[in-house]
Amino acid sequence: MNFKSVPEIWAAIQQGQWRKPTSGLAPGYTQANVVILPKKEAFDFLLYCYRNEKPCPIIDVTDPGQPSPPVAGPHADIRYHVPRYRVYRHGELEKEVDDIAELYTDDMVTFLIGCSFTFEEALIQAGIPVRHIEENRNVPMYITNIQTTPAGIFSGPMVVSMRPMPEAMAQQAAEITAPFRKAHGGPVHIGDPAAIGIKDIHRVDFGEPPVIREGEVPVFWACGVTPQMALKNAKPPLVITHSPGYMFITTITEEELRRQ
Amino acid sequence: MNFKSVPEIWAAIQQGQWRKPTSGLAPGYTQANVVILPKKEAFDFLLYCYRNEKPCPIIDVTDPGQPSPPVAGPHADIRYHVPRYRVYRHGELEKEVDDIAELYTDDMVTFLIGCSFTFEEALIQAGIPVRHIEENRNVPMYITNIQTTPAGIFSGPMVVSMRPMPEAMAQQAAEITAPFRKAHGGPVHIGDPAAIGIKDIHRVDFGEPPVIREGEVPVFWACGVTPQMALKNAKPPLVITHSPGYMFITTITEEELRRQ
Repeated sequence: MNFKSVPEIWAAIQQGQWRKPTSGLAPGYTQANVVILPKKEAFDFLLYCYRNEKPCPIIDVTDPGQPSPPVAGPHADIRYHVPRYRVYRHGELEKEVDDIAELYTDDMVTFLIGCSFTFEEALIQAGIPVRHIEENRNVPMYITNIQTTPAGIFSGPMVVSMRPMPEAMAQQAAEITAPFRKAHGGPVHIGDPAAIGIKDIHRVDFGEPPVIREGEVPVFWACGVTPQMALKNAKPPLVITHSPGYMFITTITEEELRRQ
Repeated sequence: MNFKSVPEIWAAIQQGQWRKPTSGLAPGYTQANVVILPKKEAFDFLLYCYRNEKPCPIIDVTDPGQPSPPVAGPHADIRYHVPRYRVYRHGELEKEVDDIAELYTDDMVTFLIGCSFTFEEALIQAGIPVRHIEENRNVPMYITNIQTTPAGIFSGPMVVSMRPMPEAMAQQAAEITAPFRKAHGGPVHIGDPAAIGIKDIHRVDFGEPPVIREGEVPVFWACGVTPQMALKNAKPPLVITHSPGYMFITTITEEELRRQ
């Protein structure tokens, strides 16, 4: 399908014409992780994100019961415009659904959280390889021994994504990504995986194993799976997220996000 | 009195040996505005601050009932270490008190909000005049026609502080203050007061009237009085703040704050 605008994509999703992952769906526009919680847990989660800005960069938060993200999609309806949702009760996946109209009560708060996919185009533009794209794989992700700062019921380890590159390019990659504060910013670690508790770089916790060439170093960025780990630990009575890969597409361009 | 450390100042305050404004009390250390609210209103207020980072830069937030700001003073006790508190009920000032031990229930959340006083030393170091310090006055502050982004029960106009300076220095002042994100950052406006709804620059809404010399332009920064206006509009059942000028002294140095 060929879409002319982000609202057209939202409409297609709502009408059931797009039930696939969103990777590559709206080039130039920021895609976001979705976390929806009752207000009772929302203060703790907002505080958790504030205290852990690197793994949990907030792009937008709604008022309770409001279905439109005021900054990231004022004309969107979060109840219908994500291609697939996951509903968790007390930490257990209950079901996957196509809309959440019945679950989105006056009490529900939507959080949109940034994703490192946003800065990959900038790396490619600078001639830095993004291996998992080249190889058409999912990015390798690892649970580290870096602990996030707890807030209320939320706590857990930081999860990182990894992109291997020639050692001489790592510093440049750090400088390019640092301004993308709302997409995890600069790397949290460059080099020795053991230093952040990763025993075997070829054994991933999420995503697909890496392809690392000779002379390359692993570069690690904080990852949006971190808040999902914290949600699993907290086991709130109800939480709704996007299904992995089925992100919310915002009307914020990647260039706008870089300047935030 | 001569204090050797911030914890020594906290102890003196707790023992009743310092019941005065804190200006100049701990050179080099960041002072913060204090807002304490029950958890019920804390989500809305945290969201308001997040949506209005320039006037409401958050330095630290406690978990409910925790008396120590984890980042800004892990060994402080917010119930005793502010020289004077104000207690508001439904938007009305009820009383001023020396400690809040009895009011600080398990439910109370403390917010520490940055203050533009933090970057004044950096301006002075660069040879930029800070007139209200030269003249030993309070900084002039104005209510503008810039509306903040509402969140839940909180809304209201942006309040700004103003420092006049030779026109040629305004750009440099903007560059020096921009990195102080947690102390209001760069100016929100330079020049014509009418453009942001200020009819008469000599008639202030808070603080003291300015002293402006020939060839000088007014430079306006977002001001920490903004969240106080929002609190007045919202009229929550209970809110505790510092008394104006009687700030909380953090263990974060001004240089550390500049890098946050």
